[in-house]
Amino acid sequence: MFLRYKEWVERELAQAVPKPPGSQMYSVLRYHLGWADCHGQPAKEPVSQGKALRPTLCLFACQALGGDPQRAGPAAAALELIHNFSLLHDDIQDRDVERRHQATAWSVWGEPKALVAGNAMQAVGDLALLAGARRQVPAGTTLRVSDMLTESYLEMIEGQCLDLDFESRTTISTDEYLHMIACKTGALIRCSLEVGATLGGGDPAATQGFARFGRCLGRVFQIRDDFLGIWGDPAATGKAVGNDIRRRKKSFPVVFGLEHATGPAREELLRVYRQDQLSEADVDQVLAALEGVGAAQMSQQLTQDNADQALRELEGVCLPGWARAEAEQLVDFLARRQF
Amino acid sequence: MFLRYKEWVERELAQAVPKPPGSQMYSVLRYHLGWADCHGQPAKEPVSQGKALRPTLCLFACQALGGDPQRAGPAAAALELIHNFSLLHDDIQDRDVERRHQATAWSVWGEPKALVAGNAMQAVGDLALLAGARRQVPAGTTLRVSDMLTESYLEMIEGQCLDLDFESRTTISTDEYLHMIACKTGALIRCSLEVGATLGGGDPAATQGFARFGRCLGRVFQIRDDFLGIWGDPAATGKAVGNDIRRRKKSFPVVFGLEHATGPAREELLRVYRQDQLSEADVDQVLAALEGVGAAQMSQQLTQDNADQALRELEGVCLPGWARAEAEQLVDFLARRQF
Repeated sequence: MFLRYKEWVERELAQAVPKPPGSQMYSVLRYHLGWADCHGQPAKEPVSQGKALRPTLCLFACQALGGDPQRAGPAAAALELIHNFSLLHDDIQDRDVERRHQATAWSVWGEPKALVAGNAMQAVGDLALLAGARRQVPAGTTLRVSDMLTESYLEMIEGQCLDLDFESRTTISTDEYLHMIACKTGALIRCSLEVGATLGGGDPAATQGFARFGRCLGRVFQIRDDFLGIWGDPAATGKAVGNDIRRRKKSFPVVFGLEHATGPAREELLRVYRQDQLSEADVDQVLAALEGVGAAQMSQQLTQDNADQALRELEGVCLPGWARAEAEQLVDFLARRQF
Repeated sequence: MFLRYKEWVERELAQAVPKPPGSQMYSVLRYHLGWADCHGQPAKEPVSQGKALRPTLCLFACQALGGDPQRAGPAAAALELIHNFSLLHDDIQDRDVERRHQATAWSVWGEPKALVAGNAMQAVGDLALLAGARRQVPAGTTLRVSDMLTESYLEMIEGQCLDLDFESRTTISTDEYLHMIACKTGALIRCSLEVGATLGGGDPAATQGFARFGRCLGRVFQIRDDFLGIWGDPAATGKAVGNDIRRRKKSFPVVFGLEHATGPAREELLRVYRQDQLSEADVDQVLAALEGVGAAQMSQQLTQDNADQALRELEGVCLPGWARAEAEQLVDFLARRQF
């Protein structure tokens, strides 16, 4: 699926982002997207933009329902730009210095300009949707899609706010956690499919089927991400075992551990997460406590349950054979990926 | 004009901002807007939201062209929310601890949550426009208005980026400065009038007339603001004389001073602005240098020229007597205001 839409996505993105000469703001955008170096010059070897999951899902849903993916191109670009806007701001908040094997925008241009460039990325995404979609889609549909995108984007922001709140808390229920990721990660993934289905001409039932599929897919994606952040193979992820523990991230296994550990193991977890910095011995303690409650198996189980559910949600939607096969491959890939 | 639309604006804003119970993110929004205290409880004495210039201009243009201001209400709310989004982020960047006589959001909730809440404010603004306008306005018009708003919002961001760039420069031409404020301040003010005129049913010539009026008004507003930031009466502005000099702001009088001072006065200015912090003696030096080149008179002259030009731009637009009189009063107020 990713290969099928790779060129589409790249072309739509290139069309969506303006190139006014001499504007530093647009240089920051193009740098973050891997197209320009830190002087604003075209990158000699464009840096990989990752999987482009969201626009791919959007184009797939459109085509799976018999629509011309051309119609969904501007919305697909908007989804990727809004995702990248959140990455630009996330890097500032997390003080991350590297993303996609290059220095983060804030670490090159400073925080204020990266913040402002993030806002610009979001606006460029909105404009892409408004201008592009208008060319091929009735105004009423464009408005509906614009509404969906803005709603899901607001949900994503609410999720970011909840996530920030979790940083200072040690009692978070699994349900609270699942709500947070449904907002932070799930909303835009669900929206990608919903928007694609809408632009593909899907009837309300099909569009809702894709939306529910997307809701499950968001959980699959994030819980697998959380698993890899702790137990991923360092050779595949490029990060040490226990990386997310060291960063004190309240990811699913940790939330589950804090909820289910008892006695001294629980005390130990609470002690560790009350600290500002973790030692390697702390990391080992947490790994042992998570093993004690079976957090890794539970993560994998939850991922698989949602993967199964995702495919069930598509059962009622009438799809051509190629689309159903690709949906299955996608779910399988997201549930089992190593990086 | 402000009194005429005050209640409209307050009602539209209250409708636009959701109140989900228990959401910290919306508490931050409501706090920034002066409606809630820092615990999310309704404010006992709602803090003044300032002049609400942008929504007022939007409603005025709509009604002046014979439209029902009801049609422009959601767009007016969106304009005010987007303005407030920029204030939330500005406060973070400038490390300002007080706005409208209360602690700034980032100083209460920390930078990450204020940043995220700023993004939410912008999205809530977009939704207000999409949802509200759809009730009364054809989809094609809502799309056009949404496009205008997003374009001007992107222009505002570009202006913020240029302004950040000026911080580290000592050679900025008056033209560069005027371009920066046309983006940073002017774009949203112009857009307020353009959107209001569009929703009021104005023909292209009338809408363009209001847009050009807005372009001049933005300059009047900002250059007067710059004047007051240095020479404003402390009793009226609540700030000491020379306040913007102390903050090292590259406002119009300073840009003009750096451009027109010669010999030792210029050397002195350059020396002062190469420092990270200014002493009171430095502030006095700058004040003397600005007096030497007549920067205060030039600021007032430029404000007046743009005020005159603003009214000329409206001459070709057919307006009822009350609207022309209010436009004149508004221009006069913005050009002569003391706070």
